[in-house]
Amino acid sequence: MEKNVSDAFFRDELQTLAANGQIDAFRGKFLDMHPYDQTAFFMELPEDIRLHIYTYLSPEEMAAIMEHIELDDIKPLVTEMDPRFAAMVIAEMATDDAVDILNELRKDVVVSLLTIMDDKNADEIKELLHYEEKTAGSIMTTEFVEIYQATTVSDAMQYLKAEAPEAETIYYLYVVDADKHLVGVLSLRDLIIADSDVKIADLMSDKVLSVSVAEDQEDVARMIRDYDFLALPVVDFQNHLLGIITVDDILDVMDEEASDDYSKLAGVSDVERPKDSALISAKKRLPWLIILLFLGMLTASLIGQFEEALEQVAVLAIFIPLLAGMAGNTGTQALAVAVRGLSTGDYGKQGKLKLMLREAATGLINGAVCGALLTVIVYFWKNDFYLGLLVGFSIMVTLVVATLAGALVPILMDKLNIDPAVASGPFITTINDIISIFIYFGLATAFMQYLV
Amino acid sequence: MEKNVSDAFFRDELQTLAANGQIDAFRGKFLDMHPYDQTAFFMELPEDIRLHIYTYLSPEEMAAIMEHIELDDIKPLVTEMDPRFAAMVIAEMATDDAVDILNELRKDVVVSLLTIMDDKNADEIKELLHYEEKTAGSIMTTEFVEIYQATTVSDAMQYLKAEAPEAETIYYLYVVDADKHLVGVLSLRDLIIADSDVKIADLMSDKVLSVSVAEDQEDVARMIRDYDFLALPVVDFQNHLLGIITVDDILDVMDEEASDDYSKLAGVSDVERPKDSALISAKKRLPWLIILLFLGMLTASLIGQFEEALEQVAVLAIFIPLLAGMAGNTGTQALAVAVRGLSTGDYGKQGKLKLMLREAATGLINGAVCGALLTVIVYFWKNDFYLGLLVGFSIMVTLVVATLAGALVPILMDKLNIDPAVASGPFITTINDIISIFIYFGLATAFMQYLV
Repeated sequence: MEKNVSDAFFRDELQTLAANGQIDAFRGKFLDMHPYDQTAFFMELPEDIRLHIYTYLSPEEMAAIMEHIELDDIKPLVTEMDPRFAAMVIAEMATDDAVDILNELRKDVVVSLLTIMDDKNADEIKELLHYEEKTAGSIMTTEFVEIYQATTVSDAMQYLKAEAPEAETIYYLYVVDADKHLVGVLSLRDLIIADSDVKIADLMSDKVLSVSVAEDQEDVARMIRDYDFLALPVVDFQNHLLGIITVDDILDVMDEEASDDYSKLAGVSDVERPKDSALISAKKRLPWLIILLFLGMLTASLIGQFEEALEQVAVLAIFIPLLAGMAGNTGTQALAVAVRGLSTGDYGKQGKLKLMLREAATGLINGAVCGALLTVIVYFWKNDFYLGLLVGFSIMVTLVVATLAGALVPILMDKLNIDPAVASGPFITTINDIISIFIYFGLATAFMQYLV
Repeated sequence: MEKNVSDAFFRDELQTLAANGQIDAFRGKFLDMHPYDQTAFFMELPEDIRLHIYTYLSPEEMAAIMEHIELDDIKPLVTEMDPRFAAMVIAEMATDDAVDILNELRKDVVVSLLTIMDDKNADEIKELLHYEEKTAGSIMTTEFVEIYQATTVSDAMQYLKAEAPEAETIYYLYVVDADKHLVGVLSLRDLIIADSDVKIADLMSDKVLSVSVAEDQEDVARMIRDYDFLALPVVDFQNHLLGIITVDDILDVMDEEASDDYSKLAGVSDVERPKDSALISAKKRLPWLIILLFLGMLTASLIGQFEEALEQVAVLAIFIPLLAGMAGNTGTQALAVAVRGLSTGDYGKQGKLKLMLREAATGLINGAVCGALLTVIVYFWKNDFYLGLLVGFSIMVTLVVATLAGALVPILMDKLNIDPAVASGPFITTINDIISIFIYFGLATAFMQYLV
């Protein structure tokens, strides 16, 4: 196997070369690695060696590294660079990545970097900077290949040769008219197979799928996944071609969205990173815990209402966590299924009503099975048939209501145009705690005469 | 905008053409759509019209549709086709998709389909059929472009023209020696820029990254995402080139893995589908609920041990769900952070110890804040300082232990080579229920003299 960054000996050797200023030897070994591995090595270095390396590499070489650095780590790096070098590095990056980086910096730093930068690059970046986060505009790049319908295949190939070093992808060619309207698309595969004197107009597909610049990035991801595209053109409302979104950016979007849904289900408000300190972790989780603490107080005061029943039949308390726990679990199951379905767009309009009916039936089946089981267990354990019946019947009613609640909340949120993933697990769990206690003590109070 | 499948009028028109046997008119409109849209239309049709369509389309045209059908829907379609047609359709598909479909069918059906199929395709498929699920081998395709080092650029371009219609991607060319060992890689981009008489050996990169055929598909996905590849070669243990994995398959893998993690966090054992009936849904969720029911009985019998304390101080019962709920929530938060970190490979070896220390500190901060808050609230509500202190102190200890448990369980599972995502939310929640009750009643019993 080749030497690489996961080899500690190789890493030390490289670091020594950098520290000793053996520029040629360092460059030879370093630039031989894939940019992703260069980045992994670079991020492990102490600041003083990083400062050396900025002087060993060209802005273009540094740009390749920057494109692989996680956004949360970007700020200190840009700050420690010479501003002119930083501006040149950012100018060399793909515009979409450059914009991502600038979005992490303070406004005045951005302004001064754009001022140092050459006008062409600065203008391209400025245009992308004002698109809203998580839209197609914010993840597109402007380095695409556009050609005219009258071009011949051989001219197009010549043009591609010239554009290849700069373009984000050369595997799709976008065909535009004189006013820059998107009129067609052509894959490099089609171009290669074609005869050299054929016109692009006769070769291209005029059924070109595109997304609007304001489209949600999650919808763009779904489209690229469904249609197996390597890139998708982005247009404005008059169908002018503005940029393209490539599949490698979509992989990052999917990762981000999956992490986001996952964190929300667990009630972690913001995506946490392994490097976060305990204080930052606590700050991200505390808001949820405090909200849940107050919701928990509601549960407590609800039980408080039934203190009299509890004093008469202390054994009732034994089953509180079991009931609340089962309600929370079944609600989270229903929630996860509904959120996942909503986010992959699997439901139609009718589908939501169907889903609710199915969840009601699912809750009833699960409730009946668990209820029967629990009745028998409690009867044999406590030798009290009525207590068994109470607990069993309570769990049945609870499971039906809790399952419905788990599905209903995300559907309602979706209707109100709120991201259904916000209806996190802990929230549903606490709601269902309350529901279960209400049902349990309600039934216990009603049938108290059989229990004492 | 172009007419498409989301237009109900267009859909009805197309269906009428198919039903009336107006083959040419139907083919004209139908084949004009993207295969994904063809599939969406096809899947909405009743069986009798589907049976017509099989006779209107060539196996190749039908194969394009089949590649977009979800695997769970495949079985009835293959069964309703004429077996010879089905074999021809599957032979026309990319081998990786063909294998996915055959894996859904009964063994005897697979054998008979492979017998009808021409030998070349049948052999290719048979070779892939025995790779284990979720490995690189199971998602790779064998339709790649391989060339020799001695080839010139112009010969390579000629070869590509011939291979383009069949190959899964022509954007990477893999260079092999006479024994089919993978020795280099070349992108079509590099080929296009190069002069026509240059040898491939002088142009290719010999630092070709590859994955072993037994590699986990999640690791392959991570590699393609990190390195921004469009495809990755798959080799055996002697570095023979066996196949390639393309980025479009990786999008599906990422989706599948994200759904899987998400479902497990919510305690849904298997990924559910919107079309599942209530009975199937219930069957998928019940195993979890029953396990949790028995774990809940543990909680109940634990409280039963403290029945005496409860009879003396019934007010203790009021705070059970609050404590259990908070323990469950904080555990799920810690769990989600740890599982996500483990699955994206963010932790090193040292990282896990660091993570545990951080989680302990996070638990302590959150516990102190929530504990102080709760002490004050309970004191003012119940006008009982000792009760407030008991509940507040209990929540503090509980949050520390529950947070640690949430992080520890997935780390232990990872050490034991079990997928950490199996440590689902409900499981951790129930463990933490038990921990919280033990702490709460333990403290209550110890300090009973201050409470009665």
